[in-house]
Amino acid sequence: MASSLKRHNLLVTTDLVRDISSFQRVAEVYRSNELDEGALANLLPQIDALLIFNWPEFLTEERLGGMKQLRFIQSILVGVNHIPFDKLGSRVIVCSNAGAYSLEVGEHAFGLLLSAAKRVVETNNSVRMGKTDFKEFRGVATDILVLRGKTLGVIGYGGIGAVVARLGKSFGMRVIALPRKRGRVEKGVELRWGTGALPGLLAEADAVVLAVPLTRSTEEMIGARELLMMKKSAILVNISRGDVVNQGALFEHLKLNPKFTYATDVWWFKEGRETLITEYPLTSLPNFIGTPHISGPTALSSGRPQKMAVLNTIRYLEGLRPENVVRRSEYLTGQS
Amino acid sequence: MASSLKRHNLLVTTDLVRDISSFQRVAEVYRSNELDEGALANLLPQIDALLIFNWPEFLTEERLGGMKQLRFIQSILVGVNHIPFDKLGSRVIVCSNAGAYSLEVGEHAFGLLLSAAKRVVETNNSVRMGKTDFKEFRGVATDILVLRGKTLGVIGYGGIGAVVARLGKSFGMRVIALPRKRGRVEKGVELRWGTGALPGLLAEADAVVLAVPLTRSTEEMIGARELLMMKKSAILVNISRGDVVNQGALFEHLKLNPKFTYATDVWWFKEGRETLITEYPLTSLPNFIGTPHISGPTALSSGRPQKMAVLNTIRYLEGLRPENVVRRSEYLTGQS
Repeated sequence: MASSLKRHNLLVTTDLVRDISSFQRVAEVYRSNELDEGALANLLPQIDALLIFNWPEFLTEERLGGMKQLRFIQSILVGVNHIPFDKLGSRVIVCSNAGAYSLEVGEHAFGLLLSAAKRVVETNNSVRMGKTDFKEFRGVATDILVLRGKTLGVIGYGGIGAVVARLGKSFGMRVIALPRKRGRVEKGVELRWGTGALPGLLAEADAVVLAVPLTRSTEEMIGARELLMMKKSAILVNISRGDVVNQGALFEHLKLNPKFTYATDVWWFKEGRETLITEYPLTSLPNFIGTPHISGPTALSSGRPQKMAVLNTIRYLEGLRPENVVRRSEYLTGQS
Repeated sequence: MASSLKRHNLLVTTDLVRDISSFQRVAEVYRSNELDEGALANLLPQIDALLIFNWPEFLTEERLGGMKQLRFIQSILVGVNHIPFDKLGSRVIVCSNAGAYSLEVGEHAFGLLLSAAKRVVETNNSVRMGKTDFKEFRGVATDILVLRGKTLGVIGYGGIGAVVARLGKSFGMRVIALPRKRGRVEKGVELRWGTGALPGLLAEADAVVLAVPLTRSTEEMIGARELLMMKKSAILVNISRGDVVNQGALFEHLKLNPKFTYATDVWWFKEGRETLITEYPLTSLPNFIGTPHISGPTALSSGRPQKMAVLNTIRYLEGLRPENVVRRSEYLTGQS
């Protein structure tokens, strides 16, 4: 099946990558949606590289177990928490797509932050529902957060966190950020590490943006205790993954603190899939703002994430060291 | 009533200015809400300076006609379109409060712009109403406007326009602005003048922010013709005055162009007062976003507009030339 002149067999499991000509010089390339069940079953044991978007449903634990040649998985999504790391052989390298969505997701984070800060959703809906006396809105003006001079906390300082921090500075905000690695220096951003860093950031910030990947150590990193450390009128923006926040604790906190706002583009996972249906009736609360995970798809429509994933896959196929190799120990399972 | 040692009699008609001690060195100071009807009627003919917020209801045309000493009116509002210029003697100087609200209103303009660009209001409300399948939102991602690289048009380049332009640049936008006066130069902003400037800006911009004062020449400057010049998917933000836009034309345009968004903090005047009740059912349209004029009050809660108005009034009382003197010929009437 695979040509003897080519060392690699690549399987592309998503239609997001349309043009596969750039691979054909260095690998035999297959598309899962062009193969029937039998052909797919025969092919999988020979595949050494996968280019995926969502985790393909046909890659069950049993089939994955039979893929003895598998060495490389490139994700088009920036987050790789959907990959079942505990079912992968130890020689498999997994690459995220870090940086590919930073611009669009960073802008979206600011869209959520400003929608909350300027009370756009809440007051727009009140006017729509017939609240048409200016006097009824007098109290709102003092609830509005003027960003200039306030403190922005950025948790996670990768590509997206850096875009968010830069925008925060341009609004005249003081920016505190928690990077994953020590030692980095960034002009105009207070980078902090260590055990006291998170509580300090949460206590000082008027607005916090979550921009960490979902890993073993970031899962539910924001729970009841952390929410209590925050200002009563703070804004918490999430553009990482829903499960970074404990949903039950968030629901209680929003109910008890009507001036606190949670604004998110990402939702909790249930049975391995992100879902807009929440366990707690969060969307009935006026201080919960949620967009249906639309920041990433916006980037996809630019073609940049696909192009970056293709280029990184070619690095692997050509024998170069690929970028964005994930530390597998940080991920317990994809089914969080 | 007035001390012979003090040359000025100042009437303060708003509770927004609480501390009047700074005036007392240079003027007799009165508060309208501390005087009964008779005392007020006796006092008005001696008043030469007024410090106002909204136009006071007791200052009827007849009473104004009797205020022969009136020489100076300081507005705490930045816009002075509420002042009945045609009822004022020719020697009365009117001062706006330009610059006092620029930061808060400029930030609010960006809040409205990003809420529209990132489809926050629309998608949040859809999820709330039970649209909980991600697939139903697939089309939205391509409707989202990524600001970087896009063109922002700023109509009116005073204090607020300059804040908006600066924020636009920090989002990586190309910024075109129409200042009121020729000859100004601003780094990184394309300033334009003359007859072709407005049509050019409207045609090129992905988002337009209205930041002009409401005057004879800006009233309904955006009508059916101007809306047609804009991109079908453009965002029009209004933080100046509702009446800068023709309401009927806007309603028709929003109905015919569902991807066009109008996002406003300011509403149309009716019988001399701004009102949230519109002639056309604008708030029933999904592509209309309206906040209930909350950007200005936010600035008031900082105390800055009051302080600036007080300082400018003192300039007049001390015989210095006050700032922000309005060109009366630009305003036909306050009852627009």
